[in-house]
Amino acid sequence: MSWGKGRAAIEQRGKVIYHTCMKYSAFFIPTLREAPGDALIASHILMLRAGLIRKLANGLFAWLPLGLRIFRKLEAIIREEMNAIGSLEIKPSVVVPGDLWKETGRWDSMGEALLRVKNRQNADFVVSPTAEEAFSSLVRDELSSYKHLPLSLYQINTKYRDEIRPRYGVMRAREFTMKDAYSFHASDSSLDDAYQAMGQAYRRIFKRAGLTVIPVRADSGAMGGSASEEFMVESAIGDNTLLLCPSCGYAANVEKASCKPDYVSRTLDEARRAAADLPLPAIVDTPGVKTITDLYAFFDKDEKPVFIKTLIYQVISPGIDLPGTDSGAQNTFVAVCIRGDLDVNEVKLAALLKAGEVILAQEHDVTRITGAPVGFAGPVGLTAAPVIADETVTALNAAITGANAQDKHYRNVAYGRDFSAHIVADLRVVKAGDRCCQCGAELYEKKGNELGHIFKLGTKYTAAMNVRYLDEAGTAQTPLMGCYGIGLDRTIAAVIEEHHDEAGIIWPATLAPFHVVIIPIQYKGAVQAQADELYRELERRGIEVLLDDRAERPGVRFNDADLIGIPYRVVIGDKNLALDAPMLEIKKRSEDSARLIGVGEAAEYLESGIRADSAALNGCA
Amino acid sequence: MSWGKGRAAIEQRGKVIYHTCMKYSAFFIPTLREAPGDALIASHILMLRAGLIRKLANGLFAWLPLGLRIFRKLEAIIREEMNAIGSLEIKPSVVVPGDLWKETGRWDSMGEALLRVKNRQNADFVVSPTAEEAFSSLVRDELSSYKHLPLSLYQINTKYRDEIRPRYGVMRAREFTMKDAYSFHASDSSLDDAYQAMGQAYRRIFKRAGLTVIPVRADSGAMGGSASEEFMVESAIGDNTLLLCPSCGYAANVEKASCKPDYVSRTLDEARRAAADLPLPAIVDTPGVKTITDLYAFFDKDEKPVFIKTLIYQVISPGIDLPGTDSGAQNTFVAVCIRGDLDVNEVKLAALLKAGEVILAQEHDVTRITGAPVGFAGPVGLTAAPVIADETVTALNAAITGANAQDKHYRNVAYGRDFSAHIVADLRVVKAGDRCCQCGAELYEKKGNELGHIFKLGTKYTAAMNVRYLDEAGTAQTPLMGCYGIGLDRTIAAVIEEHHDEAGIIWPATLAPFHVVIIPIQYKGAVQAQADELYRELERRGIEVLLDDRAERPGVRFNDADLIGIPYRVVIGDKNLALDAPMLEIKKRSEDSARLIGVGEAAEYLESGIRADSAALNGCA
Repeated sequence: MSWGKGRAAIEQRGKVIYHTCMKYSAFFIPTLREAPGDALIASHILMLRAGLIRKLANGLFAWLPLGLRIFRKLEAIIREEMNAIGSLEIKPSVVVPGDLWKETGRWDSMGEALLRVKNRQNADFVVSPTAEEAFSSLVRDELSSYKHLPLSLYQINTKYRDEIRPRYGVMRAREFTMKDAYSFHASDSSLDDAYQAMGQAYRRIFKRAGLTVIPVRADSGAMGGSASEEFMVESAIGDNTLLLCPSCGYAANVEKASCKPDYVSRTLDEARRAAADLPLPAIVDTPGVKTITDLYAFFDKDEKPVFIKTLIYQVISPGIDLPGTDSGAQNTFVAVCIRGDLDVNEVKLAALLKAGEVILAQEHDVTRITGAPVGFAGPVGLTAAPVIADETVTALNAAITGANAQDKHYRNVAYGRDFSAHIVADLRVVKAGDRCCQCGAELYEKKGNELGHIFKLGTKYTAAMNVRYLDEAGTAQTPLMGCYGIGLDRTIAAVIEEHHDEAGIIWPATLAPFHVVIIPIQYKGAVQAQADELYRELERRGIEVLLDDRAERPGVRFNDADLIGIPYRVVIGDKNLALDAPMLEIKKRSEDSARLIGVGEAAEYLESGIRADSAALNGCA
Repeated sequence: MSWGKGRAAIEQRGKVIYHTCMKYSAFFIPTLREAPGDALIASHILMLRAGLIRKLANGLFAWLPLGLRIFRKLEAIIREEMNAIGSLEIKPSVVVPGDLWKETGRWDSMGEALLRVKNRQNADFVVSPTAEEAFSSLVRDELSSYKHLPLSLYQINTKYRDEIRPRYGVMRAREFTMKDAYSFHASDSSLDDAYQAMGQAYRRIFKRAGLTVIPVRADSGAMGGSASEEFMVESAIGDNTLLLCPSCGYAANVEKASCKPDYVSRTLDEARRAAADLPLPAIVDTPGVKTITDLYAFFDKDEKPVFIKTLIYQVISPGIDLPGTDSGAQNTFVAVCIRGDLDVNEVKLAALLKAGEVILAQEHDVTRITGAPVGFAGPVGLTAAPVIADETVTALNAAITGANAQDKHYRNVAYGRDFSAHIVADLRVVKAGDRCCQCGAELYEKKGNELGHIFKLGTKYTAAMNVRYLDEAGTAQTPLMGCYGIGLDRTIAAVIEEHHDEAGIIWPATLAPFHVVIIPIQYKGAVQAQADELYRELERRGIEVLLDDRAERPGVRFNDADLIGIPYRVVIGDKNLALDAPMLEIKKRSEDSARLIGVGEAAEYLESGIRADSAALNGCA
């Protein structure tokens, strides 16, 4: 930590990002025995304890010198993979004009997570949380011809989201660094090429970082549609629920997961014909029976009772016309019917209605629409709101539903005969135990954290921002767009979550802040000479070394080395040097036992080990 | 500009920052024939025309791919030089808590240039314009012992200043990138070591960037005092006035410049004795004679009239006690006396009084303090405000001054006899024609732009923020601090200002976005084969090449090459290839004429030229 000692490094021109090698005493690694109490998960605790980061305020962190070395390595991996697929780096400002966000409507729709600023002239600005607007604005002034397309640009830059409850360290911080790329295309197939290449690049990036990611697709099927792929890591504190197939590898976010039907879907006509012989709906008195549980209990005497659950939803800013609603209305209501054992997936419902949001209607709205208190809604005779039915409903014969009157239900209700639906769609929440839509195996659930996301945006932003190019015929066209993001800070946190033990972090060779830590038992005499010689020899070979020259007890330094997670530890002591064949003790952080290596072979042993470890991760072994 | 073409580069792992070599068609260089009308200076015009930057909004810019290559090279030079002197890079957040700024009082004193933000919880934040607070806050939690000192940390990060009138492109933008370093020390000599090392590092950085900077010192003399050094470039639009000595190289900002006295300074006693034989002050009626010009005209009949100008200043937040003012008063007044031909330097005055600001008093305050309208103030008998005298005043015999009464002046006023001063100091504005304080030669003036600044802060911030360490005796001490900044964007603009001609930019080898541009007259057949071969051969040698494979006319491509300023241009054409000894035409951007080089020698010729040019700038030839 002495300022003057780094001066010797002046000859090292060409070490662009950081010194290859450092002595501990000239570096700054403030390790801690205990992390502050607000650190709850392994990565947060270990990043604080290992001196990688410090908190400046809630959700705001500083990367310290050791952490920044890791950060720069991840940046470099991402740059290499982006450059390799022809994406070009630019650097727009972090603070951008609010007017751009007003053009796309996100000034309003982003809500409070958007950090808005007024400057001294009272103009509106945004501290960028993402940059569709800024990139579209830049491209709009430069695109004139189809010859300029495709164009793929990215940045690695500061982002800000005003998280209401930042926590888990850099895993959910307010300020963070994101690699965000945006591509512009004249055709669906060109967009799809870029999207596929990005997906491959993301796989390489995470593999090189030593991460096991779960790519979660949500394809609309049609090329050029709104395909997206999320790159998730398993995490107990993840805010996504994933449904995974143990057999074929299908993985989906619960928000969009579908499953193999456990029913036989029917058209309106098919359902009507099937109901021809059924008794007509009959009112049943059901005093106080409001919930599905109550219903099951009440109808327990029936043989295999079948229920249709009906929920009234308020729809905010619907993007499609719905009966009984003025076109362009900001707000409307729908009745959603689904088989009684299932839940409605509100993300699917909102997507179906192209709505900003859907929320369960308040009690007075339910009463107004159904004529009954909450708990007695049903599709038969309901006219005050359009009926939206989950596919499962079309398969049910003689179902029990609410009768839109207090303490009344219907028996013998049949889709097609007693009611129809304005839209039928897959709206169910898929759960563990449902069957994989690809192979039929039983799905299981995990919690996941999103590290990256690639997305075909179509013309959503380019149309809103009036981005145009002239096609070969000289006609103005709106380019298709894709966007592709990776959060750097949380990717590093995820690596720690996956690679640590009780003693600390175990860095993959590709991200390790140093490859080797040399610990001389005492930094003096022959031990010092040997430590210095190995340090110089490894530096000459391009291996990054931390030489722990501190006067601390060996145990303290061993613990720090394990905590900060350097892949190879070399211990140099008098006894091993005094052997007939002088030896060093080398231990891999990821292994339990050390081995003795002759002093003459140590550098080669370490270099080949590190090169092999790196090559295995980089996939260029 | 075709997205797919970069794909071949996938094997190029290890090219961390950018591709070494690019084909023009796979890159994005939107050159312009004309710059927008708001671009007034060469660097702004050329950065837009060469496709280095684009404006996102007033004072907000995006660096495009070509510009970013230059930007990254400057970053790398700065990192190398910072690392070489043992400063360690960290990365704090850009948005920082307003509370830190309240601790030092700068939340209030920074005024409107500080971009303040409220988050959704209504807490105050700042988009950092500088980071004394953030670094002090980080260090405060980590420093426990003198053993941790000295500590030097830096960042290269986004900054924001809410300039009221941003202009001249990135030269005076609102958002910009700054390298800012902060060092912490247990002794004056340690701070001085770091300060001197930074000064040397800054000289190397600017030299390597090809810039002629004028280092402008303002030393307080005492070590550990408030020494500072500004690194200026000459600029017609600079907002600093510099006084330069043609003989000894003395350079000073007018705000702090001093000159060789053109008078003989006297103590109060010396002045009193010298005035013993002079007639006593006598009132002269001077109806309507209010200005120095009026006075010269009025007293023209006198032989060599001598005047003392007296100005009443309002002093905002004085940091020293002044007579007639309550200690800690927010606001007071002083009367400043200076020889009639000189002007008062308000920066010197504010520094002398350790004041936030000094401003000429308003008319009603002048009348209240002097008992007369503006134009008749004088030191004799003035009691309502303390007199602050410039050194020149002590040398004057029989001076004419205002008499603190309307239309009245005094003759025969003598310092020491008729008035004294609370403080005597150097307060004059030094002008072209004044004599160098070091060698006596005649000073001249230039306008300058500040690119960097190094500063000994002492304990100003560490004391305010309660940063403490325990010294060897176990006593809590406040560390000394230094701060050191360089604006990256404006440094690049300054390089262009210094290195351009009518055709465009002429990059120094160290910052050039590419070293070589290859222009095949037509990219086909034998010419294409030769162009590709040279491209690969140069890439193999680590030379950065742009191959202009566009189907544009050669003239268009020659103009673009000159505009973007690549140091070496290679033209490959059928005729020269068809010679008995096939030739290429090579032209340095900085030279007028091209030369023919045999195809076999071209790569070696280019490589050695570039290595020599780089080495000359890097000072490691």
